Amino acid sequence: MSSFWNHNISISVFGESHGPAIGVIIDNLPPGEHIDIEELKAFMARRAPRNDATSTHRHETDMPSIMSGVLDNRTTGTPLMALINNNDQHSKDYGNISHLARPGHADYTGAVRYRGFNDVRGGGHFSGRLTAPLVFAGAVCGQILERRSIYTGAHIARIHNISDTKFDPCHIDRETILRVRHKRFPVLSDKKGDAMYNDIAKARECLDSLGGVVECAVTNVPAGIGSPMFEGLENTIAHLIFGIPAVKGIEFGAGFEASKMLGSQNNDDFYVDDHGHVRTKTNNHGGILGGISSGMPIIFRVAFKPTPSIARPQETIDYSELKNDVIEIKGRHDPCVVVRAVPVVEACANIAILDHMLEYPNF
Amino acid sequence: MSSFWNHNISISVFGESHGPAIGVIIDNLPPGEHIDIEELKAFMARRAPRNDATSTHRHETDMPSIMSGVLDNRTTGTPLMALINNNDQHSKDYGNISHLARPGHADYTGAVRYRGFNDVRGGGHFSGRLTAPLVFAGAVCGQILERRSIYTGAHIARIHNISDTKFDPCHIDRETILRVRHKRFPVLSDKKGDAMYNDIAKARECLDSLGGVVECAVTNVPAGIGSPMFEGLENTIAHLIFGIPAVKGIEFGAGFEASKMLGSQNNDDFYVDDHGHVRTKTNNHGGILGGISSGMPIIFRVAFKPTPSIARPQETIDYSELKNDVIEIKGRHDPCVVVRAVPVVEACANIAILDHMLEYPNF
Amino acid sequence: MSSFWNHNISISVFGESHGPAIGVIIDNLPPGEHIDIEELKAFMARRAPRNDATSTHRHETDMPSIMSGVLDNRTTGTPLMALINNNDQHSKDYGNISHLARPGHADYTGAVRYRGFNDVRGGGHFSGRLTAPLVFAGAVCGQILERRSIYTGAHIARIHNISDTKFDPCHIDRETILRVRHKRFPVLSDKKGDAMYNDIAKARECLDSLGGVVECAVTNVPAGIGSPMFEGLENTIAHLIFGIPAVKGIEFGAGFEASKMLGSQNNDDFYVDDHGHVRTKTNNHGGILGGISSGMPIIFRVAFKPTPSIARPQETIDYSELKNDVIEIKGRHDPCVVVRAVPVVEACANIAILDHMLEYPNF
Amino acid sequence: MSSFWNHNISISVFGESHGPAIGVIIDNLPPGEHIDIEELKAFMARRAPRNDATSTHRHETDMPSIMSGVLDNRTTGTPLMALINNNDQHSKDYGNISHLARPGHADYTGAVRYRGFNDVRGGGHFSGRLTAPLVFAGAVCGQILERRSIYTGAHIARIHNISDTKFDPCHIDRETILRVRHKRFPVLSDKKGDAMYNDIAKARECLDSLGGVVECAVTNVPAGIGSPMFEGLENTIAHLIFGIPAVKGIEFGAGFEASKMLGSQNNDDFYVDDHGHVRTKTNNHGGILGGISSGMPIIFRVAFKPTPSIARPQETIDYSELKNDVIEIKGRHDPCVVVRAVPVVEACANIAILDHMLEYPNF
Repeated sequence: MSSFWNHNISISVFGESHGPAIGVIIDNLPPGEHIDIEELKAFMARRAPRNDATSTHRHETDMPSIMSGVLDNRTTGTPLMALINNNDQHSKDYGNISHLARPGHADYTGAVRYRGFNDVRGGGHFSGRLTAPLVFAGAVCGQILERRSIYTGAHIARIHNISDTKFDPCHIDRETILRVRHKRFPVLSDKKGDAMYNDIAKARECLDSLGGVVECAVTNVPAGIGSPMFEGLENTIAHLIFGIPAVKGIEFGAGFEASKMLGSQNNDDFYVDDHGHVRTKTNNHGGILGGISSGMPIIFRVAFKPTPSIARPQETIDYSELKNDVIEIKGRHDPCVVVRAVPVVEACANIAILDHMLEYPNF
Repeated sequence: MSSFWNHNISISVFGESHGPAIGVIIDNLPPGEHIDIEELKAFMARRAPRNDATSTHRHETDMPSIMSGVLDNRTTGTPLMALINNNDQHSKDYGNISHLARPGHADYTGAVRYRGFNDVRGGGHFSGRLTAPLVFAGAVCGQILERRSIYTGAHIARIHNISDTKFDPCHIDRETILRVRHKRFPVLSDKKGDAMYNDIAKARECLDSLGGVVECAVTNVPAGIGSPMFEGLENTIAHLIFGIPAVKGIEFGAGFEASKMLGSQNNDDFYVDDHGHVRTKTNNHGGILGGISSGMPIIFRVAFKPTPSIARPQETIDYSELKNDVIEIKGRHDPCVVVRAVPVVEACANIAILDHMLEYPNF
Repeated sequence: MSSFWNHNISISVFGESHGPAIGVIIDNLPPGEHIDIEELKAFMARRAPRNDATSTHRHETDMPSIMSGVLDNRTTGTPLMALINNNDQHSKDYGNISHLARPGHADYTGAVRYRGFNDVRGGGHFSGRLTAPLVFAGAVCGQILERRSIYTGAHIARIHNISDTKFDPCHIDRETILRVRHKRFPVLSDKKGDAMYNDIAKARECLDSLGGVVECAVTNVPAGIGSPMFEGLENTIAHLIFGIPAVKGIEFGAGFEASKMLGSQNNDDFYVDDHGHVRTKTNNHGGILGGISSGMPIIFRVAFKPTPSIARPQETIDYSELKNDVIEIKGRHDPCVVVRAVPVVEACANIAILDHMLEYPNF
Repeated sequence: MSSFWNHNISISVFGESHGPAIGVIIDNLPPGEHIDIEELKAFMARRAPRNDATSTHRHETDMPSIMSGVLDNRTTGTPLMALINNNDQHSKDYGNISHLARPGHADYTGAVRYRGFNDVRGGGHFSGRLTAPLVFAGAVCGQILERRSIYTGAHIARIHNISDTKFDPCHIDRETILRVRHKRFPVLSDKKGDAMYNDIAKARECLDSLGGVVECAVTNVPAGIGSPMFEGLENTIAHLIFGIPAVKGIEFGAGFEASKMLGSQNNDDFYVDDHGHVRTKTNNHGGILGGISSGMPIIFRVAFKPTPSIARPQETIDYSELKNDVIEIKGRHDPCVVVRAVPVVEACANIAILDHMLEYPNF
C-alpha cells in the first residue's frame, strides 16, 4: 500500500499533478452527517494558490465534485468519492528536466522505487497538489467534529527566523481558532505576520525559498480517546502528518523543549476545576498521555523544510545516465509552502481525531 | 486495535507490568534467517535496568523464551513468539496510589479509556517495561538487516542541556555504529557522557528527573525503499517511535532546523561519486525524500520528556472520587529514561526498515 | 471500512447505481506493467448487459476512464484510478418503491445499517452495478498475471438444474481457458448452454428468475503461494467472492463432495512427472493445501442465488412505517445474473492471486 | 501476514504442534467484560481429544493460562494473551516421514512456501492443534456476546452420507443451541448421531477416515450489523472459517441449494410480526442480506474433507529429493475431525460477529 490509510475511517488518495484528475475516497464515515458545501469550499480555498508573493500563480479552482457518498447534503455512510479535475497543466514547463533530479525532491528516489515508470511531470503522485484531496477529506471530517463542538485550528508558528505568538496551551477555545482561521495570513500576531510576509517576498526575489513551523490545536476532545502503544493519538497524527510533502518533524505539547526540562517542571499537575472538570495546570503534555486524550487541548507543531524548487542553478545528477549535471528549475513554485500548509495540517488532525472517536460508544 | 501493528511484518505486544508475563508475536519474518541468541541477549541487555545512578534497581533478566517460529536457530517463517516472565514484581509499592493520577502518566487517561478496568499496577500495559518485547522484536529484525549489511545505531544526542557530538550525517558507517553500540553509556563523546551521567545523578539526588534526545542512524539502506503519502519511511518510523512511552517529538535529517534554513541552504545537491554511486553533498534530508530512501544514511532524532515518576510531592487528583489531592510516588524509577531508550529507538528503526524492505524483490 | 480491501494490493470501490459515477482505486500494483486497453474493454464487455433474453437492456458502455496510475500504457506504480460515468439512469422507475423492502435485497438491512441515509435508488452502493469497477480491477490484475503465464478462466457450471461439463481438474491449460472465455455464453458444452439459455428465457417469461453456479480455475500458479490460517488463498478468494452480490456459497476442489468421501478417496497422491514437476494424480484439493498453492490448477465453485428482483407481486414491509405491504418491482432486471457474473468471479480470483504473488521474491 | 487477523478485534495466533507452546493474543476487546473461566474450560473441552472411536488419544488438557488482559475476571481492554503449553509431544512418531509429503497435508506446499525452514513435526504451524487458541479466542468472544443475549450454536449436519436433522432456519433460539451444545456428540437427532458414530468407528477400523458438514447458527444478532462489498458478515465469517484446516467449502442460508431455486421460491418475504418485529417468512438468505444482518438467525454450513492422515500406505513423493515414494503414516490421528470441529466453527462465528458489533454505537 502507499496512498491507502485503512483505519476506522479509510482514506485512499489518487492522482498525479499533470494527469487528468486527482481525488480521494473516504470510507466508513458515519451516515447522516450534514455536509456544508460552502464550508468545504472555504476550507479548500485556504489551501489554494493565492495571487501574492507567497505562492505560485497556478490557477486552480480545485473544488472537488462529489461522485458518491453524499445525498441531499448528508453522508450516506457508503464511500464518499471526490474528484478534482486538473485544468491548468503546464507540462511543457517541466519538459527539459525529466531526468535531472531536482535537489530536495523525490525525482531520484521515485525513479528508483518505481523503476522509472512513475509520472514525473510536476512531481506526479509526489506533488504537493495531492494535498488537495487530503484537505478535502480533512474538511469533511472537521465538519463532523464541529457538529460535536470539537474545533481544530492551526497558525503559522514560525517562518524562517520570525516567530508568531504561541497558542496559550491551556486556554484554546473555539473563538481562538475561528479568529485565526479566517485570516488570509493565518497568524495570531498580525505584526509578526507582516514581517513573515516580507521575508517570504524577499526570499522569492532572491530566487530562494523559506520553511517554517505550523502549530495546530484541537479543542474539546473528550478525555479517553486513543490507545497505548501503536494506536495512540500521537502515532496516528504523526503517521498522517508525514504524508504531507516537506514535513521534517513533529512534536506534541512541549515537544523537544520538554527534553530540556526537569521532571518537576515538565509534569502537568492535575486538578478538578470549579465545574468538576479534570484539567491540568500546565499543558506540556499537549493533551495526550499514553496515546490517549486528557481532555486538555491537543497541541502539536510541524516543521516544514523550505520549498526545494528554487530558480537558482543547482548541482545535481541526470539519474538516467548517472552523470553529474546542473539544473535550473523553471515553472511556478511557492517560495514558502507553510502558508498553504496550515489547512493541510488541520486536515490531518481532523482525520486522526474523527477516526479515533468512531471507536467510542455514543459518538 | 492498539498494540497490534499490521504491515508486511506484523507485531503484537501484550502484557502488564505486574502481570505474570509480557511478550510479543512477530509475524511474516522471512524464513531461514539465522537468529543469534547471544546477540539477542546483548541487545536486550542494553535496555535492562543497570545498577548505577541513571536507572531503577529493579532486577530483571528479561531474557525472552522463544515459544515458536525459530527452529535450529533459524526463523521458520511462521509466527515468532517470545515470552518474558515477570519475576520481580513489587506490587505493594504501588498499593497506595491506585486512584491518584500520577502527573505525566496515563493513569487518568487510561482509567477513562478503559472505564476503570485496566490494570494500573506499575502502569499496567502503559509501563515502559512493555518496551522489552519491542526491543526483542527490533533485535530480531536488526539481525536480519545486518546479514544484508544494514546497520542501525543510536546514541544519546542530549540529556537536559548537555549535548553529545552529532553523527556526521554523510559519513556514518558500520564502525561508527558498532563503536557507540558497545558503550555502557552510549555517546560519541565520552567526556560529554560523563557530564550527562553526573547531571542525571544530581537530578536523582534532588528527587527530580531529566529528559533528552536520542539520535538514530541506519546505514546502507539501498535507494528506493518506501512509498509516498501514507507509507513512507518517515510515516512508519514515526508511527512506531510514538509507541515508546515518554516520546514527545521526532525529526528527520535537519528536522526543525531545516525550517529555519533557506532553500538554497537546505537542498542537498546530488552527485555521482567515484564508484558510480549516487550521493548527496549534505544530508539535510536525512536519507529520505518523498518517503523513499535515497541511499544516504537515514537519520532521525527523538525527544524524550523527563521521567514523570519523581519522588517529590505533587498536586493531583483522585480520579475515582474526582477531588484534588497530593501524591508522593514511591517505588523504583529511572531518573532518566533516555539511556535505556537508545536500543528501543534502534528497535523501532529496525522493524520499520525491514518491514519496508520485504516489499522489494530480491531481498 | 466496507468497500476497502487492504492487502498487498489495495482496492477501494465507490459509487451508487444512480449517482454521477462509480469507480475504483487500485493501489500498489507493480510499476512498468503493460496495460492493454482493448483487452480491458473486451474483459469489461463480458460483464456488460447484453441484448438478449438473459439480461437487462440497460445500455451501458461502462468503459472506465483511467484517471491516474497509467502512463504510456504502463502502470506507474502509484494508485490507478478508474472512473465509470453513470449515463443511463432511470431513477423514476424506482420512485414508487423507496420504502418497500424488495425481498432478497439489502433495502431493509441497508436502511437499518445506515439509519435511512443510504442511497436506495437502484440499490445504491449495494447494486450489482458496483461489480463493474471490481471487474476492471480484476482485468488489470489478470493482464499482469497473464504476462507471467498465469491464466484465469470461469464457466457457467450450472443454471437452475442444468449442469455444464466440469473442468478436468488435473488438466486445465491456457487453451481450455481461452476457448470458453471468448464464447458469448461461457460454457464448455454448447449444447448444455443452449438448454440453459432456454431455461433462462422461460423463467423470464414467467416473471421469475434463476440462479446457478460458476466454476473458476487458475492455471500455472507456482507452488508455494499463500499462507496458513488467516492469509491462505482460500481465505482471500472467499473474502473477495462474497463481495459479489447474490453469492451464497463457495467451495474449493471437491468442496462439499469431499465431505462425503473416504480419506482414501479424497487424498490426492503426489508424484513427480516425467519433466520433474511435482503433481497430484487427482485434484480434489483444488490446487490449495494449507492455504498454499500446490502447483496444480486452482479450482473453486461459487453459488449464486436467483436474481431477487422479479416482476411478480411479493409480500413485504414498508420499512419506514413498519407495516406489511405488497411490492411489484418494475424496471429492468436480469432474469439470471450468472452469465454476467462469470468475469466477476474471474476478477476476484485475479486480484487474490496477484495479491499473494507480490509477497514472493522474483515476481 | 499470515496468522494475524486485524479488524476491530485483532487476533494473532502462534505456535507449532511440537514446539514448547501455542497461544493467541486478542486485542481490542471491550473493557470490563466478565470472563467465566469455568465456561471457557467447558468450551475448550468440546474441542479436546476424547477417548473414544472418533478421536486421537493424545492427552492434552489444553487449558490456556491467561497472561494478560484479564484482571479480577474482567477484561482490562488491553491485549488478552493466552498460553497453552505443549506437554504431550511424541515427535519421534514423525521422525521417519520428515521429507515424505503426506497426501492431503501441507507438507509439500509448506516446504516450498518456507523454503524448507518451517517446523514439520506434527504439521508444525499447520497442525489442527492450532485451532485450540482459535477456540479460546472464540470462547471469550462468545461470552461477551451471550451477555447481550446473542447465542452461537453448531451441530454435525452430516458425516459421510449420514445427515442430521437441519436447524429450522426461522426458529433457532437459545434453548435449541444450549441443548445441542452440551451433548458429547453434538447432533439434533441422537439416533442419527449413533449412526454417525458407528460409521466413524468403522472407517477407523478400515484405516480410513471420514469428512462431513457442520451447520452453525447465531441467534439474536440485531439487524443492521455488517457492511456491503468487502466487509460483509459473509466475507468475515468465510475469511475466518477457511483458517480451520480441512475446510473445503462454506455456504450461507440455502447456499448451493439456492442456486437451484426459482427467484419466487428463494426470496424470503418480509413481514412485521405481532410484536412489531421485522421477520421473513422463510430464511433462505441465512440472516444476511447485502453483507448485513437482517435480524433473522444467521445460518451457515461448513464442509470438512476427511482427515488426510490415514494409516494405509499411500503413494507420494520425497520432496527434498523430488522422487516418488510410498508413505505409511504412523502416530495418533482423528478418523474424523468433524466432531471436534464443531466448537471451532462456533468460535469463528463468535469472533466475526463480535468484531462487527463493536462498530455500532451502544454495543
